[in-house]
Amino acid sequence: MVNEAAHTITRYDQELESLRGIVARMGGLVERQTAQAIAAVVNQNEEAALEAPALDPEVDALEREAEILGIRLLALRAPMASDLRMVVAALKMSGDLERVGDYASSIARRAMKVEPLGGAFSFSALRAMGRLVQENLHRAVEAMADSDAERAREVWSADTVVDELYTTMFRELVTYMMEDPRNIGPCIHLLFVAKNLERIGDHATNIAERVYYAVTGDMLPSERPRGGEAAKDANAGDDTDED
Amino acid sequence: MVNEAAHTITRYDQELESLRGIVARMGGLVERQTAQAIAAVVNQNEEAALEAPALDPEVDALEREAEILGIRLLALRAPMASDLRMVVAALKMSGDLERVGDYASSIARRAMKVEPLGGAFSFSALRAMGRLVQENLHRAVEAMADSDAERAREVWSADTVVDELYTTMFRELVTYMMEDPRNIGPCIHLLFVAKNLERIGDHATNIAERVYYAVTGDMLPSERPRGGEAAKDANAGDDTDED
Repeated sequence: MVNEAAHTITRYDQELESLRGIVARMGGLVERQTAQAIAAVVNQNEEAALEAPALDPEVDALEREAEILGIRLLALRAPMASDLRMVVAALKMSGDLERVGDYASSIARRAMKVEPLGGAFSFSALRAMGRLVQENLHRAVEAMADSDAERAREVWSADTVVDELYTTMFRELVTYMMEDPRNIGPCIHLLFVAKNLERIGDHATNIAERVYYAVTGDMLPSERPRGGEAAKDANAGDDTDED
Repeated sequence: MVNEAAHTITRYDQELESLRGIVARMGGLVERQTAQAIAAVVNQNEEAALEAPALDPEVDALEREAEILGIRLLALRAPMASDLRMVVAALKMSGDLERVGDYASSIARRAMKVEPLGGAFSFSALRAMGRLVQENLHRAVEAMADSDAERAREVWSADTVVDELYTTMFRELVTYMMEDPRNIGPCIHLLFVAKNLERIGDHATNIAERVYYAVTGDMLPSERPRGGEAAKDANAGDDTDED
C-alpha cells in the first residue's frame, strides 16, 4: 500500500514536471522567434526573417500538448492548492506564449518590407525596444521555469521603458512619412513591428502575473505601472499612438 | 445519504452554471464595448467613445471572478469529461473576452483622433468590417452560452471576409496618406482601428474553437480557413499589410 502510494505520487510529480517542461520549451522557442524576428528587421537579414514563421507549427503543437496534458492532470490527479494553480497557470501561459510566437512571426514577415527606407533610418529606438522586450520575455520565461515569484514581480513592473520607447519611435516614423510619401509603406510596417513588440512585452507581463499568482496564491494589482509621467503626457497629444 | 448526494450534485451544477453565467456576462459586456467603439469611430460620436473604456474595470473584475470560481470548482468538485473541458474552456475564454474588451477600448480611444479626415473618408469598409466582426463575436458568445458546437464551427469558418475587408481598407488608407501628409496622423489611427477589429475577429474565432472542443472533445484543425485566393494575392504585394 505504501509502495503503491509512493508510485502514484512519483507519476503525478513526473506529469507535473512534464507539463512544466512543455511550457518551458514553448518559452524557449518563442524567445528564439522573437530574437530572430528583431534581428531580421534591424539587420535586414532575410534568412533570420524566415526562421520565426518556420517555428510556428512547433509552438502550436506544444500548446495543444500542454492543453491535453493539463486537462488529463486535472481529471485524473485532482491537484490541490499550489499544484492546481500551477496547472491552470500553465494552461493560460501556453496561450500567452502562442500569441508571442504569432507576434514574432508577424514582425519577421514585415522585416524585408522595410528595406526601401535604406540607410536613412537608424533603427536605434527599435533596437533598444527589442533588447528590452527580449530581456523581459526571457526573465518571465525563467521566472516561470523556476517558479520564482520575486523575479516575476520584477518583470511585471519593468515595462515602463518599453512604452516610452514606443512613443519615441511612433513620432520618428510619422516624421519620416511626412517628409516623403515613399516612406509611408515601409513606415507602416515599422509601426506594426513596434506595436507587435509592445504586445510581446504585454504578454511577458501577463506571464509574470500568472507565475506570481501560481506561486504565492496572491494576485498582483490589476493596474500595473504603465509609462512614466513623461510618457503619459506624450500620449495625451493628438498625433501620438494610444494603446 | 441519498439526500446528501442530491444536494451535492445540485450545488455542483449551480456552480457550473454560475461560471457559465460569469463568462456569458463578460461576453455581453465586451459585445457592447465593441459596438460602442465602432459606433464612436464611424459616427464620430464622442459619448460612445467614452463608454467602452468605462466598462474595462467591470470586465477585468469578471475575469478574476471566473478564474477564482473556476479554480475552486476544479479543486473541490473535480469535474470530469465534458464538465472539465467546459471549466477549462471558460477559464481560457474569459482571457479571450478580456482581450476583446481591451481592443474595443483601444478603438474607442482612437475614435476622436480620426476627425481631421472630415467628410473625405467614407468609413464604408470599416462599417462593413465592424458589422461582420460584431456578428461573429455575437455568434461566438451565443455558441458559448448555449454550448452549441455547430454554431461554433460556423463562426470559426466565417472570418474570411473580414480579412479581405481589412486589405481593402489598408490600401484605401495608404492612398489617403500619400495624397496629403496631413492625413497621416488620422489614417494611422484608422489603421490601428482596423487591425484591432481584425484581432477581435480572431478572438471570436478562438472562442468558437474552444466551444467546439469543450462540447465535442474534438479539436478543429489548427489551420482555419484564412482569406480567399484574392486576399492571399493581395497580401503578397509589397504595400499591403501582413498579419
